[in-house]
Amino acid sequence: MPRLAFWYEFASPYSYLSAMRLDAEAAKAGVETSWKPFLLGPIFQAQGWDTSPFVLYPAKGRYMVRDVSRIATARGLPFQMPKTFPARSLKAARLALLGQDEGWAAPFSRAVFAAGFAHGEDISADAVLTRAAEAAGQDYARLLQCISDPGHKARLRAQTAEAAALGVFGAPAFVCSGNELFWGDDRLDQAVAWQSRLNAAGSPLAS
Amino acid sequence: MPRLAFWYEFASPYSYLSAMRLDAEAAKAGVETSWKPFLLGPIFQAQGWDTSPFVLYPAKGRYMVRDVSRIATARGLPFQMPKTFPARSLKAARLALLGQDEGWAAPFSRAVFAAGFAHGEDISADAVLTRAAEAAGQDYARLLQCISDPGHKARLRAQTAEAAALGVFGAPAFVCSGNELFWGDDRLDQAVAWQSRLNAAGSPLAS
Repeated sequence: MPRLAFWYEFASPYSYLSAMRLDAEAAKAGVETSWKPFLLGPIFQAQGWDTSPFVLYPAKGRYMVRDVSRIATARGLPFQMPKTFPARSLKAARLALLGQDEGWAAPFSRAVFAAGFAHGEDISADAVLTRAAEAAGQDYARLLQCISDPGHKARLRAQTAEAAALGVFGAPAFVCSGNELFWGDDRLDQAVAWQSRLNAAGSPLAS
Repeated sequence: MPRLAFWYEFASPYSYLSAMRLDAEAAKAGVETSWKPFLLGPIFQAQGWDTSPFVLYPAKGRYMVRDVSRIATARGLPFQMPKTFPARSLKAARLALLGQDEGWAAPFSRAVFAAGFAHGEDISADAVLTRAAEAAGQDYARLLQCISDPGHKARLRAQTAEAAALGVFGAPAFVCSGNELFWGDDRLDQAVAWQSRLNAAGSPLAS
């Protein structure tokens, strides 16, 4: 069955909102997901930004914190901004990419997001990533060995380039079969419904 | 009764989406609205942008057209991008500000938005603005006389500065009593519900 691709960045607050509800919403609609970690850094750099737009544009950054807080409250989800924003997410993204290959990306990623945005922890710290690996049933030492491979590092760069080629310019993004793109946690339900209709029609073509 | 303030820019596609449904949604919730036209130009300039981010960031611009098209289709609303984007909206904004003073901003503004985004017309053209004035029961010649006043022009600048002071960095924006800010058509329902709760509580203080 075609899957709904969830493109996410661990430093992104709105990706946190989506990560914590996507699979439950998709399951209700009979839609399967694939979790695709990538890095916003290179995509922002291509837009001429050397950091998050929430840092570059302070009014937007202040609003984002309030907006995510309101939404998290409505969903009964804890939320705080990590001490360092944007967080250094490279190592977590390399680990999640390994999880994508091996089938444990979703529980690992939810644990990383919860560490960063529910508990305000530093998601670049080995202690934090060790606990996230354990939450996904994985041995951290083995994972570190795997992600140190230059080929693996190159794959994360390639996956980020794939995101850009799909038209992704921010996170989270959802890509349905037929490359229909949705951006933002506020489009999650629309993306799930779109993929569900595609599956029902038995065709990857958009209506 | 406190009102929900709707801050909008005539060149903004997402403002079009909100303008066409705000008063109906607000009425269902027993919420009154005030329509506040402003100019995004000075606000974008303060962020270092000399035109719309949808022009500066082409991936974002392509996505916006697809996103607004999908939403408009789902709502049964016609949509097309005007030939010139962003449209020159200064004159329409000055007219709408007069409408704000005199009580006909909503029907005039809906007519301007429909001309631009349903019919792809040039909203800086006098023929188009004349029809929008007529839709609001107004004589265009009189309006032109009023908006030529330097004091009126200054008031639009002041209203735009007021938007910036409220933290508005894009359009549409919704500001509830207590200066609670919501950004984007996808936050319209949340803003209406927020104002409705404030009205029920009889207090401008946010929960």
